Amino acid sequence: MDWLLYLPLAAGVVSLVYAFGKTAWITKQDPGGDTLQEISAAIREGAMAFLKREYKILALIGACIAVILAFTEKGAGQLVSVAFVVGALFSGLAGFIGMNAATKANSRTAHGAEKGLVTALNIAFTGGSVMGLSVVGLAIIGLTGLTIIFTRIFGEDPEAMNKIVLTIISGYSLGASSVALFARVGGGIFTKAADVGADLVGKVEAGIPEDDPRNPATIADNVGDNVGDVAGLGSDLCESYIGSIIGAMVLAGEMHELKLVYLPLLIAGVGVVASIISTFFVRTKEGGDPQKALNLGTMGAALLTLIATVPLVLWYAPKLFNDGMYSSYGIIIAIFAGLASGVLIGMATEYYTADGKKPVAGIARQSSTGPATNIIAGIEVGMLATGIPVLLLVAAIFVAHYFAGLYGIGIAALGMLATTGIQLAVDAYGPIADNAGGLAEMAKLPAQVRERTDKLDAVGNTTAAIGKGFAIGSAAFTALALFVAFKEKAGIEVIDVTDATVVVGLLVGGMLPYVFSSFIMGAVGRAAFKMIEEVRRQFREIKGVLEGTVKPDHVACVDIATQAALKEMIIPGVSAVVIPIIVGYLGGAEMLGGLLVGVTVSAIMLALFMANAGGAWDNAKKFIEGGAYGGKGSDAHKAAVIGDTVGDPFKDTAGPAMDIIIKLMSVVSLVIAANIPH
Amino acid sequence: MDWLLYLPLAAGVVSLVYAFGKTAWITKQDPGGDTLQEISAAIREGAMAFLKREYKILALIGACIAVILAFTEKGAGQLVSVAFVVGALFSGLAGFIGMNAATKANSRTAHGAEKGLVTALNIAFTGGSVMGLSVVGLAIIGLTGLTIIFTRIFGEDPEAMNKIVLTIISGYSLGASSVALFARVGGGIFTKAADVGADLVGKVEAGIPEDDPRNPATIADNVGDNVGDVAGLGSDLCESYIGSIIGAMVLAGEMHELKLVYLPLLIAGVGVVASIISTFFVRTKEGGDPQKALNLGTMGAALLTLIATVPLVLWYAPKLFNDGMYSSYGIIIAIFAGLASGVLIGMATEYYTADGKKPVAGIARQSSTGPATNIIAGIEVGMLATGIPVLLLVAAIFVAHYFAGLYGIGIAALGMLATTGIQLAVDAYGPIADNAGGLAEMAKLPAQVRERTDKLDAVGNTTAAIGKGFAIGSAAFTALALFVAFKEKAGIEVIDVTDATVVVGLLVGGMLPYVFSSFIMGAVGRAAFKMIEEVRRQFREIKGVLEGTVKPDHVACVDIATQAALKEMIIPGVSAVVIPIIVGYLGGAEMLGGLLVGVTVSAIMLALFMANAGGAWDNAKKFIEGGAYGGKGSDAHKAAVIGDTVGDPFKDTAGPAMDIIIKLMSVVSLVIAANIPH
Repeated sequence: MDWLLYLPLAAGVVSLVYAFGKTAWITKQDPGGDTLQEISAAIREGAMAFLKREYKILALIGACIAVILAFTEKGAGQLVSVAFVVGALFSGLAGFIGMNAATKANSRTAHGAEKGLVTALNIAFTGGSVMGLSVVGLAIIGLTGLTIIFTRIFGEDPEAMNKIVLTIISGYSLGASSVALFARVGGGIFTKAADVGADLVGKVEAGIPEDDPRNPATIADNVGDNVGDVAGLGSDLCESYIGSIIGAMVLAGEMHELKLVYLPLLIAGVGVVASIISTFFVRTKEGGDPQKALNLGTMGAALLTLIATVPLVLWYAPKLFNDGMYSSYGIIIAIFAGLASGVLIGMATEYYTADGKKPVAGIARQSSTGPATNIIAGIEVGMLATGIPVLLLVAAIFVAHYFAGLYGIGIAALGMLATTGIQLAVDAYGPIADNAGGLAEMAKLPAQVRERTDKLDAVGNTTAAIGKGFAIGSAAFTALALFVAFKEKAGIEVIDVTDATVVVGLLVGGMLPYVFSSFIMGAVGRAAFKMIEEVRRQFREIKGVLEGTVKPDHVACVDIATQAALKEMIIPGVSAVVIPIIVGYLGGAEMLGGLLVGVTVSAIMLALFMANAGGAWDNAKKFIEGGAYGGKGSDAHKAAVIGDTVGDPFKDTAGPAMDIIIKLMSVVSLVIAANIPH
Repeated sequence: MDWLLYLPLAAGVVSLVYAFGKTAWITKQDPGGDTLQEISAAIREGAMAFLKREYKILALIGACIAVILAFTEKGAGQLVSVAFVVGALFSGLAGFIGMNAATKANSRTAHGAEKGLVTALNIAFTGGSVMGLSVVGLAIIGLTGLTIIFTRIFGEDPEAMNKIVLTIISGYSLGASSVALFARVGGGIFTKAADVGADLVGKVEAGIPEDDPRNPATIADNVGDNVGDVAGLGSDLCESYIGSIIGAMVLAGEMHELKLVYLPLLIAGVGVVASIISTFFVRTKEGGDPQKALNLGTMGAALLTLIATVPLVLWYAPKLFNDGMYSSYGIIIAIFAGLASGVLIGMATEYYTADGKKPVAGIARQSSTGPATNIIAGIEVGMLATGIPVLLLVAAIFVAHYFAGLYGIGIAALGMLATTGIQLAVDAYGPIADNAGGLAEMAKLPAQVRERTDKLDAVGNTTAAIGKGFAIGSAAFTALALFVAFKEKAGIEVIDVTDATVVVGLLVGGMLPYVFSSFIMGAVGRAAFKMIEEVRRQFREIKGVLEGTVKPDHVACVDIATQAALKEMIIPGVSAVVIPIIVGYLGGAEMLGGLLVGVTVSAIMLALFMANAGGAWDNAKKFIEGGAYGGKGSDAHKAAVIGDTVGDPFKDTAGPAMDIIIKLMSVVSLVIAANIPH
């Protein structure tokens, strides 16, 4: 075993220690006055209660999968099962640690905003960085740890490495992806049901402002931000990160190149260290621009990673590989191609969704002729927004493949995601700032506090959109890498799209993301409907709630969202695991291959469409709220609110689930590849 | 040459003669009073003027393509060019003949409805059958005629047949598909721009009823029904029909089986005769159900075709083919599989979109909580509605392939479309009834006239949805057949989806239908916006229009829609032809193969999604208008109108364009296949 592998392990440990230190620091900050603490405690309790119940269900489902894996997998079955459990556990743990810090940071950010922007940004970002660093820390510790253990058991013989060790490691990825899908879908349903329910009855029917303490669904809404946008996001990016590393490792295994198997772990280790260092770059002055501070952090980390990776690759990787076809320089080009396409896709996403750019301005203008034209305009922008990102993606695939073969494609994904630590910190900072704003409103803090948190929150919206671009791009690369590995493992020569069996798989695969999206959006609708009825009931039956003299029953609303989310997440989650298994065993490896391709093509487009349409609708509404076309309360604004409501389940529930489904189905297929008929 | 080929030729001639006779019969019917005649003349003039200008542009574009084809195609270049021109001409002619009859039938149907339902149905259906029978007549005359001529020139040697004759015949399909795309997109933009414009200003802003003569856009709206839903639909189904016959012929050519090359023409001939006979089944009593009459016609034709085809295939087709792998019984099973899946897909479509079924009732219920929930519910239904049709499709592909190989897949498409004659008659009957209703309103005929035409129109909506199911299903089969033929012609062994070049094509292909849809919907939005401004201007500037004392300027509105449609149809139309050429020559045959697969998978899903969501929104509105959730004028109704407006460009412009794009790109690729690098 290569002793260098202890370096990423060490980086992971440092990352975790750093995250714990930061959590302790947050806990020491002033949590503010009694009202603030009380509301914050209610949110925290609701979030933790949800996570507890969610994890219980996941434990049950996970146990079933683990048992099935242990019995059906030929060869190293039980060990795959163990790796699966570790992956699932770590993914869940990452969500928990992140949410723990976030629910502590929100009230402290609100209280900090009373002092100024600098303190607020500092607390909110630190909260986010706990999540970011614990996700990458846990992911890399698990991955490197399992690699070290299993290479010790089975030796470093390339054949064993390819056949056994990487299959076992794939189990780890499977565990992480499974938990991620449930967490994303469950959290997404929770947050959007609460959001839509709170808005439709509160803002529209009762005419009270957002986050008003009289609205019984506001606590649920804020709980939702934590379980969906923090814990769900954490598990989601955890699986993307693991997937991208494993994809490259498995491809190297196929080539029987040991050093190339380990290289992704080393690059990931470099990225972790770079992420930790870059958290120090996120600083701003009073009155400064938080966007710049966050950009400095993410760009700094990317640059540091790139600088450190070049010598690492040139020194460590074989000069030539794949029978001399590609050189170590090619690997560097592939990393760069992945990183560049990620940044450019992020910029394209920003163009289509950012306030003030042409597409969003167009939706705002079309809002002035009513909701119908607003909706058509948003769908138009979302569909158009698939264009540039896909071209960037194929350009990167082409370059990476040209210079470093299939391994290059795997490495490009890693180039995009090596700095997940800081990217996720920036992503998770958004909901913390959002929550702080809600708390400020509910605790009736001075108006300037809300202004400051709003400023932090606005930045969060754009970074979230960019983060989604990275998630979708890397999903495409990773799926491709896993897919190639699947073909090799299944022992099929080609997956020819003119073969009728493959076509059957392709069409069914292309259809699945639509049916999943439909189901998830339906789940949001059903849960929101229950929430609306409960809020209406409380306004009607509990006297004094609307007058603000009696406290509404928050707990009932949190309970409704919790139960609905937990119930509705099961069907899509289980189907995503079970469908590839059924198709593989009944239809054979070729049909399953077709299915994976169909799912990937269809899901990437839907993910881009939904993320961009949703983001654009949201910001078109904000643009009008800023005074355009009559501003708040105008007919254009009403139309834009409708667009935003339609966009919510698009961008925050169904859309992000697409990325995970792509990878989950690919990794399930990879794990069962050796056993299915063809 | 096989003398039997004169039989389909004869069937085509009979079909045309019958259509001319029917046109004469319609002309002889009473066109009603002066007002009715005057309005009808205005619609007819607008429609003919549009078609004239559209065909001028198409002639220009067609000439360019013909010249390019003549010079770039190796071997039989000039002849491919000739076939292309014939295909384009016939497709255009079919649209013209159909629209000529439809614009005569509309006022006569309105006048006939004064007498009773029987007369009205008779005239409207006869108008539709002129279109249906001239489309299939022209299509089969062209196809059989070219086959006879070119086999005379090049002989019936299987090698020449495969290499030369079928390439030339593909040119015919290319011509038909090109015209179809322009006609569908141009007509679709015209009709929806006029519709949305007329509705938003007239119904919503000015508060005057639909089809009110005071609204300057009503004539344009009715012109749009003719150029979009009649002429556009005619060209569209003409190309589907030709595509399905050619797909099977080309596949037989690859196998060097002459009889199997001719068989699709013979089966199509049987379908034409069956369609003519079945027009006599469409009869109803006063107070009867027009739906039953139409169903009897389409089901009768399907049954007749099936009964006549079984002995034909058993007698004519080789007992065994493809090296003895498949038998003639397999062909019969494939025809049946195609037909059965078509009918079942139609039934599924009806379930998702029909008034009174669960999905539409769900959208209506969700309308009561506002437009946002109405939109989400409609999208949910549309996405879910991809599920069953795709499963039915793959089941048919599986069965057809299992029993008759790839040829079976081509034949299954033909099984679905052999009775296009009567199916199209039923489809085209819808807009005639719709127009008659509009005329009755504008000419202020008695209320019971409108009631009768509404009854006819409602049936038309359901049959249109079923027709779309057939169009999408057959597009999938045909594309697959053309695609297999492309691979053989391009001389590539496999199109492996794990090849990076293929993946690049796949992803770009998957993206294109989204960008096309975005563009087409944007075009509708832009054109509608101009229309809205013009109608507002007339209401504001021309005194007496709103009071009904001064006639509005209809011509200006027709002009706006005409210009917008002609301008906006060019980019998508030309791109669909040019993109495969660019990708083929620059990226090679494998990348182009990937592109075709990506386009097919993505476009089928979008077509199903859009057609079903649009149909469901439309009928949810009608359901509420029938009295549910407060009926007309309620908040639920307002929300449902918004959903319907969003659904309009979905189901009538972007959605139907998807089917054509699939086949147009496939046939362009097939034509250039032999010349591109790989």
